Amino acid sequence: MSDKLQKYVKLAVNVGVNIQPGQKLLIRCPVDCAYFARLAMEEAYKAGAECVEILWNDEKSMRINYLFAPDTNFGHEYDWVKERVKYFVDEGFNMMAVYATDPEILKGVDPERIQKEQKVGAKIGKPLSDKVSASAVQWTLISVPTESWAEKVFPNAKTTEEAMNLMWDAIYAASRVDDTTDPVENWKQHIATMQKKVDVLMKHNFKYLHFKNAAGTDLQIELPEGHQWVACGEKAGTGYNFIANIPTEEVFTTPHRTGTNGVVYATKPLVHMGDVIDGFWLKFKDGKVTEYGAEKNQHLLEKLLTTHPNADFLGEVALVPHSSPISASGILWYNTLYDENASCHLALGKAYPYTVKGGLEANSDEEKHALGINTSLTHEDFMMGSADMSIIGETYDGKKVAVFEQGEWAV
Amino acid sequence: MSDKLQKYVKLAVNVGVNIQPGQKLLIRCPVDCAYFARLAMEEAYKAGAECVEILWNDEKSMRINYLFAPDTNFGHEYDWVKERVKYFVDEGFNMMAVYATDPEILKGVDPERIQKEQKVGAKIGKPLSDKVSASAVQWTLISVPTESWAEKVFPNAKTTEEAMNLMWDAIYAASRVDDTTDPVENWKQHIATMQKKVDVLMKHNFKYLHFKNAAGTDLQIELPEGHQWVACGEKAGTGYNFIANIPTEEVFTTPHRTGTNGVVYATKPLVHMGDVIDGFWLKFKDGKVTEYGAEKNQHLLEKLLTTHPNADFLGEVALVPHSSPISASGILWYNTLYDENASCHLALGKAYPYTVKGGLEANSDEEKHALGINTSLTHEDFMMGSADMSIIGETYDGKKVAVFEQGEWAV
Repeated sequence: MSDKLQKYVKLAVNVGVNIQPGQKLLIRCPVDCAYFARLAMEEAYKAGAECVEILWNDEKSMRINYLFAPDTNFGHEYDWVKERVKYFVDEGFNMMAVYATDPEILKGVDPERIQKEQKVGAKIGKPLSDKVSASAVQWTLISVPTESWAEKVFPNAKTTEEAMNLMWDAIYAASRVDDTTDPVENWKQHIATMQKKVDVLMKHNFKYLHFKNAAGTDLQIELPEGHQWVACGEKAGTGYNFIANIPTEEVFTTPHRTGTNGVVYATKPLVHMGDVIDGFWLKFKDGKVTEYGAEKNQHLLEKLLTTHPNADFLGEVALVPHSSPISASGILWYNTLYDENASCHLALGKAYPYTVKGGLEANSDEEKHALGINTSLTHEDFMMGSADMSIIGETYDGKKVAVFEQGEWAV
Repeated sequence: MSDKLQKYVKLAVNVGVNIQPGQKLLIRCPVDCAYFARLAMEEAYKAGAECVEILWNDEKSMRINYLFAPDTNFGHEYDWVKERVKYFVDEGFNMMAVYATDPEILKGVDPERIQKEQKVGAKIGKPLSDKVSASAVQWTLISVPTESWAEKVFPNAKTTEEAMNLMWDAIYAASRVDDTTDPVENWKQHIATMQKKVDVLMKHNFKYLHFKNAAGTDLQIELPEGHQWVACGEKAGTGYNFIANIPTEEVFTTPHRTGTNGVVYATKPLVHMGDVIDGFWLKFKDGKVTEYGAEKNQHLLEKLLTTHPNADFLGEVALVPHSSPISASGILWYNTLYDENASCHLALGKAYPYTVKGGLEANSDEEKHALGINTSLTHEDFMMGSADMSIIGETYDGKKVAVFEQGEWAV
């Protein structure tokens, strides 16, 4: 095992999910990255974990299933899968998800089948995803290269091995892992820097954010009363800190569910259902998408907006400077975990309830909506940042403050 | 994919488990052999399967768990695992198990932990293993090389790749897969040859078999009334044929539970709990082991005999000529699926109920015992064949017939 890989595993276990003595850990991992799950398991036990379970997944056999199984094989709710979710929820498992997806894995698959499976998956998995959304437990999302993903990101590499090496180098760099420094210390410093931005935004307590750039975006977002800006380094219901995403460069909160008006133009393609939605825009009226268009795959955009109720309302607004290291890498990662940290972005669908004061105590959808928190079975990020992005914050007493100028922090 | 691999996959799906249109298939597979599970899944769908599920396992993380988890983490019966077993049982899944074990994976692990886990695993998995034991569904067991296994079997190979290639060649040869012939045809012929041996043994309807060789074995085994000799090519409760083991060279039935007397000397080491029991012998009185000894790891032999009730009675007697291709390969495979097909053998523990007339209708342990069928949570083969093995059959009217002479079929 290379020194950097060891550091990266420790970062995932001891900083990301920050596992504590006596805690339980669920690792969700693709079978093709089994070595990483094993290293993380051992590291978690060394940190005193009481129980570590690995839940394997495999998108390649999922694709075979989508392509070759009969129609009768989709959309079933299995009791044993519900029982498994219940076990991980009841036993208070903390969670690490290894995110390593071939961006083209769903290409050519019948979207009806994907929708059926995703709908039933989201429904059955809700007790677990609710715990994650509410940060009731510590959790982290971290990426490991796979061959198909590396070849997509580095199409000019001469061999698969070269692509994998380039991918690892890019991941280490973006995750603040290098040969000479201690990534745990690097992250302490990074968290402190991000926290300063959060403090300033919380102090201003903006009522509106106004986004404008030359791409055509002219969008006013109302923020809910009691909105909370969040950066890396959250505290879970367990009382321990965790880093939800490695890497992360974003500071985010939720728009008020019914308070967004204007138009936004995406600045990066969105990979959805194995295909790319590109050159798209959304027009909002009182929080809801009323018009939309895309140069490429508009029908997929339509599916995204209509498959799950409330997928046509916003659930996240995130600020990322155009000079962030991930943005500066110039790589198109085909992976939301990375691409979202390269650009200011919004998310359609579910909001994280802890981004509004009282959100965690609001149990029903109605209670959440009353606080301005959107609810949905989906949460889909899309990028809208640019080198010329301007963001003006407006306070309750009408004062206007420059938050971003020319794509960079102005506060 | 090589031509031979394609043939091997087809052999597993279309001959081994012999999947039919509308049937369901469960593939149990190590994560390190994921490519094989995917190929088998696609092949099964092409054969008309309605649903194919893959249940991943990983002995490397299991080992980490054994070595590093606290004591509290072992021996739990989880409801969700029971529910999963129930699902596969209730839905009538046919089964393919990919058997690819590093023979040293459990080396140095606390045997108490292994016992706890195996006990609970056998208990929870019983509804499924009962279906398999009774051939209620079609099932097959087939091996795929892993690096650690190949390196153990071919320690003189210069590279891991060379060991893997040697391993594949040996597996293809033993499984009657080659470049020029059709393995499906080869197996038809093999099944016919084996069936002839079954027919002769059934015609004689022996009351006793008497095993004798220079190694010291002098064992009389009583066969139950209505015992059935079985070779490859069984018929499942589904009405379809299947091959339980690929490869297979054995013709087997069960000894009467209380009818074995004398002494047997093992002729090959037995890998148990990651270690090797070697140079061992067992003395039987009325079916039960009354004395035993081993040159190496006698304490493991003791554990094997005492962990599960009735593990000290026999559940299988299998005849394999000393010239079988697997025996002729001269390889010590460290894998029961292969090594058991190189030698006459016995099994401690559970008998297959279909090896006695009426056995499948006997529900309770008591009913099975009354028919001479042993019941237990374990079934452990050990080898006792040799180049000089003599087997004399004795019929109900006292006629003696040579079944094996000098290690080879005499009937």
